[in-house]
Amino acid sequence: MEFKVHKLTNGLTVIGEVNKNAKSSAVGFFVKTGSRDEDLNINGVSHFLEHMVFKGTERLSPFAVNETFDRTGAQYNAFTSEENTVFYAAVLPEYLSEITKLWTELMRPALRTEDFGIEKNVIKEEIAMYKDHPNYDVLDRCRAMYFGKHPCGHSVLGTEQSIDAMTAEQMRGYFAGRYAPNNMTAAIAGNFDWDKIKDLIEAGCGGWEKHDVKREISDTRGNRGEQRVEKPNLVREHICLMSPSVSFQDKRRYAAALLGVIVGDGTGSRFFWELVDKATAETASMEYAPMDGTGAFFTYIRCARENAAKAMGTVNKIFTDATKSGVTEEELTKAKNKVLSALVIKNELPMGRLVDLGFHWTYLGQYRPIEEEVKAVKAVTVAEINTLLKQYPLGEFAQFSLGPAQNG
Amino acid sequence: MEFKVHKLTNGLTVIGEVNKNAKSSAVGFFVKTGSRDEDLNINGVSHFLEHMVFKGTERLSPFAVNETFDRTGAQYNAFTSEENTVFYAAVLPEYLSEITKLWTELMRPALRTEDFGIEKNVIKEEIAMYKDHPNYDVLDRCRAMYFGKHPCGHSVLGTEQSIDAMTAEQMRGYFAGRYAPNNMTAAIAGNFDWDKIKDLIEAGCGGWEKHDVKREISDTRGNRGEQRVEKPNLVREHICLMSPSVSFQDKRRYAAALLGVIVGDGTGSRFFWELVDKATAETASMEYAPMDGTGAFFTYIRCARENAAKAMGTVNKIFTDATKSGVTEEELTKAKNKVLSALVIKNELPMGRLVDLGFHWTYLGQYRPIEEEVKAVKAVTVAEINTLLKQYPLGEFAQFSLGPAQNG
Repeated sequence: MEFKVHKLTNGLTVIGEVNKNAKSSAVGFFVKTGSRDEDLNINGVSHFLEHMVFKGTERLSPFAVNETFDRTGAQYNAFTSEENTVFYAAVLPEYLSEITKLWTELMRPALRTEDFGIEKNVIKEEIAMYKDHPNYDVLDRCRAMYFGKHPCGHSVLGTEQSIDAMTAEQMRGYFAGRYAPNNMTAAIAGNFDWDKIKDLIEAGCGGWEKHDVKREISDTRGNRGEQRVEKPNLVREHICLMSPSVSFQDKRRYAAALLGVIVGDGTGSRFFWELVDKATAETASMEYAPMDGTGAFFTYIRCARENAAKAMGTVNKIFTDATKSGVTEEELTKAKNKVLSALVIKNELPMGRLVDLGFHWTYLGQYRPIEEEVKAVKAVTVAEINTLLKQYPLGEFAQFSLGPAQNG
Repeated sequence: MEFKVHKLTNGLTVIGEVNKNAKSSAVGFFVKTGSRDEDLNINGVSHFLEHMVFKGTERLSPFAVNETFDRTGAQYNAFTSEENTVFYAAVLPEYLSEITKLWTELMRPALRTEDFGIEKNVIKEEIAMYKDHPNYDVLDRCRAMYFGKHPCGHSVLGTEQSIDAMTAEQMRGYFAGRYAPNNMTAAIAGNFDWDKIKDLIEAGCGGWEKHDVKREISDTRGNRGEQRVEKPNLVREHICLMSPSVSFQDKRRYAAALLGVIVGDGTGSRFFWELVDKATAETASMEYAPMDGTGAFFTYIRCARENAAKAMGTVNKIFTDATKSGVTEEELTKAKNKVLSALVIKNELPMGRLVDLGFHWTYLGQYRPIEEEVKAVKAVTVAEINTLLKQYPLGEFAQFSLGPAQNG
C-alpha cells in the first residue's frame, strides 16, 4: 500500500492509496455538503442535486452519461447524508481513466431547468416511499426532535413542501456555494497509476475557482423528551431514541463504536439477549453515529404495541446498568472481534477502502492506513468505555415513537 | 494465488486457494443437495435442515454455536437452493481454525426432536413471508410449471403442508442419505495456512462414512404454456417467463450469461430501453440460471395491469428479433465489461472467491482461477451467442402471471 496526496492550487485535494495486488479500482468525489448545510427553505437540495449530477453537463446528455457507465461495466452510485455527498464507482483498471474523467466533468453539471422539473417528481416519490417505511420515518422525526434548531436535525430528503417550492435557480445558487474545489476531495483506491489519474483530475478540475465555504459546527447534547405519533396503518410500535456522544474528530470514537456493539448489535448484545431473545421486541439495535463536531447514539426498537412499555423499561434498565456498572472485558473482546472483522473485510475491497479513505480525509484531514485503524480499535480499554458512559449517560435521550392507535 | 486440493479416503474433498495478500479468510462446506433431491412428501427438508445445523451437535448447544460465531466476529451464513446447501463464514485469519473446526462439527448436527418442533414454526413463517412477495411467489410457480415432473421444479422452501407433515425422523433419514463425505466439498479462500486447515478438516471429518449418493440428472427443455392467478391484494401484474438454456457443465454457459445481460440487465439492456425506459414496465430483467445438467433463462416483469399485454408484446418482439437477427458487437462488448467487472470485484474478496471456488468444484470437479474465467468471458463471440439463440430460442417459454382481478 502506498499513500499519495496532491493539493491543487484551487484547494481540491486528490488522495490515493495504491494497492498493486488489487484487481479493481475505485474512484470517488467527496463533497463536504449535506442537509445540515441547507437553509430550511431549500431543505433537500443536497440530495436533489446529487440526482441532478447524473443528468449530465453542457457537453454530456443524460444518455451519454448512462452509456459510459454502462459500457465500461462500472459499479457506480452516489449517496447524500446530513453532511456529505459522495459519488463513486468501482471499475476494472482499464476503465479507470475514462470513469475518472467522467466524474470530473459531472462535478460541474448542467442543472438544466427541464431536467430539474422532471427529477422533482422522482424526489417526491422517494420522499413518499420513505414515509411508508416507519423505521426511516421514526428516525427522521427523532433526529429533528433531538437536534431541534441545530442544523444536524435537517431531513436529508427534505419535505414535499420544500421540494415543491424549490427552483432550479436556488439549486444553482446552492451548488455554486458548496461545490467549491476547496470543499471537495477526490479519492482513488486499488490498482491504478497515481501520476496518470492525478494529472487527469488536475486537468479536469484545475480550472474551478476557489472561494470561502463555511459550515456551522457546534457541538450539542440535543434535546430530551418523549413524543408519540399514531399512524392508522401501522401494526407495530416503532421507537427511536437518540443519546449524545462524541464527534468524528474525537479519539473516543473507537470506544463509542464498541459501546454501540456491546449494547445494541444484531446478535449477542445486551439488547439482543434482553429484548429480542426474550421476545419483548422483534428488533432492537443501537448504533454510534459520529458526525462533524458532534455525535450521537441511535436506538431503534420495533415491537408489538402491548410490549412497548415493557421494552422501554428494559432499555432504561440496560442503559442505567451500563452507566452504573460499565461493560465487561469479555463483552469488549467480543465487540472488538466484530468491529475488526467487519472493518478488515470491508477495507479489503477497493470500493470499501475508498469510503474510509475519503471520510478520514474529509473529517480529519488525515490518511489512516487500515493497520492504524485496527490498532486504534484494539487499544480501547474497558476503563475508557466506562468513563465515556459516565460522560455521556445513555439514559439521557430523546424518544420518538410511531405506532398504531392506543385503542387499536 | 496457490491452489491446493486434498481428497480424504472417505471422499470428502478439501480445496483451498491461498492468497497471502488477503487480510481475511473464508471457509465453507458445499453440500451437493437441495430441493431437487427431495421426495415431494418431504419437500423443503434441505432448507429446513440448513436451519437445524445451527441448532448444534450432541456436544454443542445452540447457545454455544452462537457464542463462537459471535465472539470471533465471524460474518457467517448459509443458503439452500434447488441443488446446493452451502455453509460459509468470513473471519480474521486468527479465528479461521476455530471457525473451521466449528463447521466440521456442525456438519454432523444433533437434529434434536425438540429443536425440530420449534424451528418448524420459523420455516412456516418464512414460507408465509415469501408468499407475500409476489416476485418470489411468481418465480416459484413458474418454475413448477416449466419443470413439471422434473425435480428442478421443487420449491426450495416446501409448502406449509409438506413442512407440517414432516417428522424429525424423516429429516434424519434425508441427512444420512445426502450429507455423505463424498457428496461434500470443504473450501477455503484468502490468507491461511493450508496444511493446518486441511489437517483440521481431516481430523474433524475423516471418520465420516462414505456411501453412494445419487442425483437424478436429466436435461429438459421444460413445458410451455401460460397461466395466470389472481390475488386480490395485488396492485401490479407480476410476470415470470422461463426459457430453456444450457447447463453449468456446458461451455456455452459464458455465452448464455452474456446473452442474459444483453437482453435483460437492469440498465442499458434491450429490456431496459424497450420496456423500462418507455415506461411500459417498472422492472424487467432476464437472467441465465445454469443448473446441474440443465439450465434456463428467467425473465421477470412487473407492470401496471393495463400494460401487461403491451409488455408481453414487446418481450415477444425482443425475443423474436434476437433469435432472427442476433446481437451486435457493441452489445457484446458492453455486456462483457459488466460481467467482467462484477466477476473481478466479487472475486476480490475471499468470501466471493469461496463461492466460485466451491461451485466450480461441485459442478465441474475443476479449479478455475479467476484469470481463466476472465479469459473465457472475453473469448465469447457474437457468432456463438447467435448460434445459441437458434439452438435455444428465447420465445419458447412458460409464462406464469400473478396479478389483480381482471376487472379490478
